[in-house]
Amino acid sequence: VRLGEFELIDQLLKPLAAGAAAALNLEDDAAVLACPPGQDIVIAKDAMVAGVHFLEADPAALVGGKLLRVNLSDLAAMGADPLGYLTMVAIPRDLDPAYLRSLIEGLAAVQKYYGLHLLGGDTVSTSGPLVLGLTILGTVPAGQAIRRRGARPGDQIMVSGTLGDAALGLRVLRGLATTEDEAMYLVDRYRIPRPRLALGRALRGLASAAIDISDGLLADLEHITGLSGVGAEVSVGKLPLSAAARAVPGASEAALSGGDDYELLFTVPPDYATEVRTIATALGLEVTTIGTIREAVGLAVLGEDGRAIATNAQGWRHF
Amino acid sequence: VRLGEFELIDQLLKPLAAGAAAALNLEDDAAVLACPPGQDIVIAKDAMVAGVHFLEADPAALVGGKLLRVNLSDLAAMGADPLGYLTMVAIPRDLDPAYLRSLIEGLAAVQKYYGLHLLGGDTVSTSGPLVLGLTILGTVPAGQAIRRRGARPGDQIMVSGTLGDAALGLRVLRGLATTEDEAMYLVDRYRIPRPRLALGRALRGLASAAIDISDGLLADLEHITGLSGVGAEVSVGKLPLSAAARAVPGASEAALSGGDDYELLFTVPPDYATEVRTIATALGLEVTTIGTIREAVGLAVLGEDGRAIATNAQGWRHF
Repeated sequence: VRLGEFELIDQLLKPLAAGAAAALNLEDDAAVLACPPGQDIVIAKDAMVAGVHFLEADPAALVGGKLLRVNLSDLAAMGADPLGYLTMVAIPRDLDPAYLRSLIEGLAAVQKYYGLHLLGGDTVSTSGPLVLGLTILGTVPAGQAIRRRGARPGDQIMVSGTLGDAALGLRVLRGLATTEDEAMYLVDRYRIPRPRLALGRALRGLASAAIDISDGLLADLEHITGLSGVGAEVSVGKLPLSAAARAVPGASEAALSGGDDYELLFTVPPDYATEVRTIATALGLEVTTIGTIREAVGLAVLGEDGRAIATNAQGWRHF
Repeated sequence: VRLGEFELIDQLLKPLAAGAAAALNLEDDAAVLACPPGQDIVIAKDAMVAGVHFLEADPAALVGGKLLRVNLSDLAAMGADPLGYLTMVAIPRDLDPAYLRSLIEGLAAVQKYYGLHLLGGDTVSTSGPLVLGLTILGTVPAGQAIRRRGARPGDQIMVSGTLGDAALGLRVLRGLATTEDEAMYLVDRYRIPRPRLALGRALRGLASAAIDISDGLLADLEHITGLSGVGAEVSVGKLPLSAAARAVPGASEAALSGGDDYELLFTVPPDYATEVRTIATALGLEVTTIGTIREAVGLAVLGEDGRAIATNAQGWRHF
């Protein structure tokens, strides 16, 4: 049974919009958002394609949830609070309606957890794979969005949580052997990103630059240093690794160049470092200083022995 | 030669963002929009899939232009002014880079004409057909967005421009015979929708309800009447048809049920009808009263002889 567009909107999507005035109950061609006084509106857009950004075997509810989580992570990196979202779904004609229902249940659970609502969207059909697009809207006090281009020499480079887990989780799904508990932990880290919204919000006025780690630590660090006109030195020995990551081969490499972590990578002037650490502790979140911003452009990666093991303007290479 | 994501963003998309402060030069994960005081933000999202919403043979520049035009049409229907847009593009791996360049040139021409900018987006790859998504942002004076649910008994039902041309243009592309000039006119109407932004803006405070005609006149009229809890009477003889439409068979049917016209369909209390007509004339735009809103639910379509030829809560059926 193919799920009609009307049924999809009326039965599955309208409940996600209930309670959000801006959604106009999904009755109109557009959402109408009252501008919150003193706030800027932050807008990001991340898409996921079946077979590229998620696996056919990934549970549909987690795919739906991940779509919202990765977009929330963009808001976190800007220091913004979530406001609402719009979806764009291109549905293969033969998609099982049960898959779509689970996917929307996943969205519903995540929107409830983070306190935002569906505001609108468009649903189309396609002869190709499932394409999921999401536009997220957030707010930040006027002028206080955290950008990528603010890092300065001497700033500490910090990350939240642990790195490399998601990339290792994907490797576990592809056959990497480990214990059942560790496998589950790593796969969850791949499928269920934790957008660091509370931390991002707390970093307003403290962090000089921020980004969420989606391409991999070094690639994303280069986005910050390149736009800020600075360089960076990172110590492999300081990278925060989970116990599950340490238990499998390739953890350090995954932490340096694996993507999909959705932890925050940010730079903090030395005077604010203690305050940031205190805040993170209050949020129950680990933050780790992994290096320093320096004036000389380029990335220097220092091995356990303190010697540079790679420096490469184009990105990370296997060491 | 495959166009890398970096090249795509840097060479093709960044120029579309130049001059828009909110775009942050596409450097960050999100756009940051200062809230215009006294305005609401209007947000819509329309997607197009190759083979479904456009033909492989349609010129790429017109496809790119149409993507922006149909989204601008959603703003027009709400009475909103364009502010900016974000794109979501799922690109087949074997897509000719020249096609993508033309598509973006088409976007560029339309954004220049309507005075808005690219603010952000996401580009992904897909094993399926090209999927184009666009999120458009606009502004409307606070509380003045025109909705679908405001039509009242006695309101005149008006449309802008002529109806049915786009559906006939699609039929021409599929082989319907007509003269070369008329064929070109109708195909242009299919490929190059004219978002009625100036009219939409002028209808604020005058129209009781509005929608843009994308599904077809009767289907879209039912969106208005259904949400407004009213019915409507429409006269086939009053439907505005272009000379090119009149020259081919099936013009009235195309006007009633063909989609893709992207003209405005709106309802106006009788006291405001003259003012609306005066404004339309000043805008160089034809508006036509095609019927009346009535209390009894359901659509009555009156033939040339004034007798009802169809009334159908589910939508239009061939007569």
